[in-house]
Amino acid sequence: MDWNVYLSGEIHTDWRQRLKEGCEANNLPVVFTSAVTDHEASDAAGDLLGKEDSKYWRDHKSAKVNAIRTKTLIENCDVAVVRFGDKYKQWNAAFDAGFCAALGTPYITLHDEEIIHPLKELDAAAMAWAKTPEQVVEILKYVMTKA
Amino acid sequence: MDWNVYLSGEIHTDWRQRLKEGCEANNLPVVFTSAVTDHEASDAAGDLLGKEDSKYWRDHKSAKVNAIRTKTLIENCDVAVVRFGDKYKQWNAAFDAGFCAALGTPYITLHDEEIIHPLKELDAAAMAWAKTPEQVVEILKYVMTKA
Amino acid sequence: MDWNVYLSGEIHTDWRQRLKEGCEANNLPVVFTSAVTDHEASDAAGDLLGKEDSKYWRDHKSAKVNAIRTKTLIENCDVAVVRFGDKYKQWNAAFDAGFCAALGTPYITLHDEEIIHPLKELDAAAMAWAKTPEQVVEILKYVMTKA
Amino acid sequence: MDWNVYLSGEIHTDWRQRLKEGCEANNLPVVFTSAVTDHEASDAAGDLLGKEDSKYWRDHKSAKVNAIRTKTLIENCDVAVVRFGDKYKQWNAAFDAGFCAALGTPYITLHDEEIIHPLKELDAAAMAWAKTPEQVVEILKYVMTKA
Amino acid sequence: MDWNVYLSGEIHTDWRQRLKEGCEANNLPVVFTSAVTDHEASDAAGDLLGKEDSKYWRDHKSAKVNAIRTKTLIENCDVAVVRFGDKYKQWNAAFDAGFCAALGTPYITLHDEEIIHPLKELDAAAMAWAKTPEQVVEILKYVMTKA
Amino acid sequence: MDWNVYLSGEIHTDWRQRLKEGCEANNLPVVFTSAVTDHEASDAAGDLLGKEDSKYWRDHKSAKVNAIRTKTLIENCDVAVVRFGDKYKQWNAAFDAGFCAALGTPYITLHDEEIIHPLKELDAAAMAWAKTPEQVVEILKYVMTKA
Amino acid sequence: MDWNVYLSGEIHTDWRQRLKEGCEANNLPVVFTSAVTDHEASDAAGDLLGKEDSKYWRDHKSAKVNAIRTKTLIENCDVAVVRFGDKYKQWNAAFDAGFCAALGTPYITLHDEEIIHPLKELDAAAMAWAKTPEQVVEILKYVMTKA
Amino acid sequence: MDWNVYLSGEIHTDWRQRLKEGCEANNLPVVFTSAVTDHEASDAAGDLLGKEDSKYWRDHKSAKVNAIRTKTLIENCDVAVVRFGDKYKQWNAAFDAGFCAALGTPYITLHDEEIIHPLKELDAAAMAWAKTPEQVVEILKYVMTKA
Repeated sequence: MDWNVYLSGEIHTDWRQRLKEGCEANNLPVVFTSAVTDHEASDAAGDLLGKEDSKYWRDHKSAKVNAIRTKTLIENCDVAVVRFGDKYKQWNAAFDAGFCAALGTPYITLHDEEIIHPLKELDAAAMAWAKTPEQVVEILKYVMTKA
Repeated sequence: MDWNVYLSGEIHTDWRQRLKEGCEANNLPVVFTSAVTDHEASDAAGDLLGKEDSKYWRDHKSAKVNAIRTKTLIENCDVAVVRFGDKYKQWNAAFDAGFCAALGTPYITLHDEEIIHPLKELDAAAMAWAKTPEQVVEILKYVMTKA
Repeated sequence: MDWNVYLSGEIHTDWRQRLKEGCEANNLPVVFTSAVTDHEASDAAGDLLGKEDSKYWRDHKSAKVNAIRTKTLIENCDVAVVRFGDKYKQWNAAFDAGFCAALGTPYITLHDEEIIHPLKELDAAAMAWAKTPEQVVEILKYVMTKA
Repeated sequence: MDWNVYLSGEIHTDWRQRLKEGCEANNLPVVFTSAVTDHEASDAAGDLLGKEDSKYWRDHKSAKVNAIRTKTLIENCDVAVVRFGDKYKQWNAAFDAGFCAALGTPYITLHDEEIIHPLKELDAAAMAWAKTPEQVVEILKYVMTKA
Repeated sequence: MDWNVYLSGEIHTDWRQRLKEGCEANNLPVVFTSAVTDHEASDAAGDLLGKEDSKYWRDHKSAKVNAIRTKTLIENCDVAVVRFGDKYKQWNAAFDAGFCAALGTPYITLHDEEIIHPLKELDAAAMAWAKTPEQVVEILKYVMTKA
Repeated sequence: MDWNVYLSGEIHTDWRQRLKEGCEANNLPVVFTSAVTDHEASDAAGDLLGKEDSKYWRDHKSAKVNAIRTKTLIENCDVAVVRFGDKYKQWNAAFDAGFCAALGTPYITLHDEEIIHPLKELDAAAMAWAKTPEQVVEILKYVMTKA
Repeated sequence: MDWNVYLSGEIHTDWRQRLKEGCEANNLPVVFTSAVTDHEASDAAGDLLGKEDSKYWRDHKSAKVNAIRTKTLIENCDVAVVRFGDKYKQWNAAFDAGFCAALGTPYITLHDEEIIHPLKELDAAAMAWAKTPEQVVEILKYVMTKA
Repeated sequence: MDWNVYLSGEIHTDWRQRLKEGCEANNLPVVFTSAVTDHEASDAAGDLLGKEDSKYWRDHKSAKVNAIRTKTLIENCDVAVVRFGDKYKQWNAAFDAGFCAALGTPYITLHDEEIIHPLKELDAAAMAWAKTPEQVVEILKYVMTKA
């Protein structure tokens, strides 16, 4: 069985890359999926259907196009990793965590110790809290390959 | 039919109060539910089962106790209102929105124009975006009583 | 048991009224629900949250507000009656029929013989096709009260 | 991952062909499915089980046979494209959209600007509205292949 | 809590009556529902919508009208009792048992010892097999009122 | 896409064989599954776990073992064909039809005209009624391969 | 809203009584349900349908009759309390916990510190672990009545 | 079709090995999955994310990490085999059985005759009770390969 792992959240650090490299180094049977992580392209997704004057509706239109991808991939994943960085609101990452919780899809949070209090509801519904991408790799390795 | 409306998010302003008063003034057939909004009591929910040394596990334990309430009430609601203020991370509100989205429960977001961009995914999955509690009252009145 | 019956479709003739009167005359244990049938109010539902310049987004916003009501009521109904008149596109009525079909909610179509061919997929998934509101009353009376 | 895309609606123009060619030109990982688009064969599907005298029951029988295919393919698809042309009632297309909405399957509507008002409920529940098959190709390309 | 008990199957003996009387005599908190048990009325249910020439389609139409009732009542019941007599095919009773099994609704079969072999799949998926209505009363009494 | 077709019912005639040969002759993309059709082996399935004195419990035990197979295969199928012959009670076939109906899995009934009346509820919930295996082949061919 | 709380597990101490009294003393809006807690009656439930020679099948028959009650009540509950004492296997209590976990129904475990290790999987899937019935009362009071 | 069989329970005897060898000897189309059966590694799973002082929270953390694996594998399996040995509490095995029961996933229990009474609820909800791994092999062989 290949495990399908969805990577949600922060797009400004290299955590996805480190996670993927760690899994490859361990030959883990894993397929990664993600939202579009090119910030500008993501904001402009709706423009493919015509420009909007209103900022609100431009965002709305783009977010719906992006949801075709994210909703499908999250619903198909076996496990999600939800990353919170030290900047930005990252409400979409928290939204993804809630979505997983309602579906009963296990997810792992990835964040620093400084933000455990505001993330307590998300950590409580998560199956694990990791501080580094390397820890996530260890967990995935254990889960997927330990006999 | 009484409508069951769950109020999620910000606990530092009087939006819940204004919303309830507006609905009462209009005699709307509505029952409101909410997480425990007493911040200290909420943080201490797990202490009822014994104190914890670790801050992480104290949060974890309290969040799980609170989830007995919030998960049950959200799953029972017909509509949710999810409020984002101008302070704090409010990741639990975004988590609730994602939970509703996955269940197919309609929700209304309530927030200022300044934060439409970071909330675009949540607004796109919402059925309406309101700027004031009074607008939410108008929507509920229309939805529940218009012939 | 009270039966919850959702009335979908045409808003330009008196079929809802005739159906309700027929059920009342027979003392049927039935509660009727419906979308907002005041056409102008329905088109303006989104205006409660602020005016829109774009016709497309005004429609979009209003349709989403209306869906808070229609989605909730359809999901709660035991049976739906879906009416197609001889004018207008009435795609929302067909949409409601598809929604019911996917949920496994039985529905009755109500339309003239002239349009059986374009409605064949909807009639095939329906539990009954009636030509008059009075026939629907007969069916509901039989279904709800026959020993 | 191959994406499974169901194409619903109008059978009198070449939109399916243009959509497929556009996806092929972009090497998109997509499998298309559809109802039987040969109008006469579709109307006669039930005749394989014996002729009917009544036009209503002939339609009924054929529509049920066709539903073995359409219901199965729609339930299996990741995304649907629902096309409305400028002629005919096309209630089955609207029915498919409602079916997708109830299942939580994302769909894209494809239609001209002239009919945005009667399609407002379907557009509001859709993830995107496109005016040309080429726009749909752009959306699918973005959703399936953007990193 | 009132228990909702659906009574499926044979309509030619007085088992429903004996079951109801036994439950009343014990003051059990139970509400009984059933298909229409007037055989002629049931066969003619579709005639309310117009006569049919074809025997097959008359049956089809009536069966669909009846299904509005039976499907709704079975989906709402807590327990079903499925009775097989010594005559007739009674395939609809077996159909109801399969329907309950797929929904996870517990059901009790009620039949003589002579037919345990052809009913083995239905008995295996049932929660109990009773030989008399009085035994069913005993089971319901135990299930509903024992402390 | 390969279609998974479950064949339920009668085991005393060659209908399964004719159906398979017809599909092979047409190169249909179909995989057939079935209950164990060796009657004696099926009755003795539970004996693998030890003999039983009671006929009822021997049947019970065997039926449960068989259900591991049938429940799994029916839940995995895209379409079922449910065959009723002119002998025996065949309640398990009717049970399978009810199971499919509750799951929303389309099924085709296969039986002679003589028994349309006792099968009316099963035919009404079916997507097609065929009189010969060859007609089923025609339907499957149309459903699976028509463009 | 009345909360429906299912009490699972140990029947040899007075924990149910203490829990009920504590909730009554606090006027909590709660309805309690339970399996039949009269051990002998529970073991004999199947005897109502006739005696069995085999101990295995007597147990089997009684357990199925009891499941009509327990399955229905667990599926209807909002929260379960699952109690493990210091004697007996109590596998049915663990079974109930697994059942709740799969349904997404929150449950609270109630057991001494000595057995936290063998119960670790059940505690991890639980929303809270209490050591005394009085602690459970505190949790329910907080969950149900705190503003 | 390959059958996915989850092996739950006892880790101190060679039943998994015997079961696998028996299936291999019969060339059964089966894929086995399991929790991590290395007891120490399983208890230490959470340590990969940092050590804990509290025994309770160490267990909690490890159990949650293990649940990423077990929950995913159980939800994906077609059949489970749940083994109870003569030692230890094995509450997690009973929990898995309850989880399967709620999902409608068939499972086979594997245990000695001495413990049929405390396991009666689990056996009643199971599809079969085997006393030896070889009997399970016989059942799987019958279920998967008998024509």
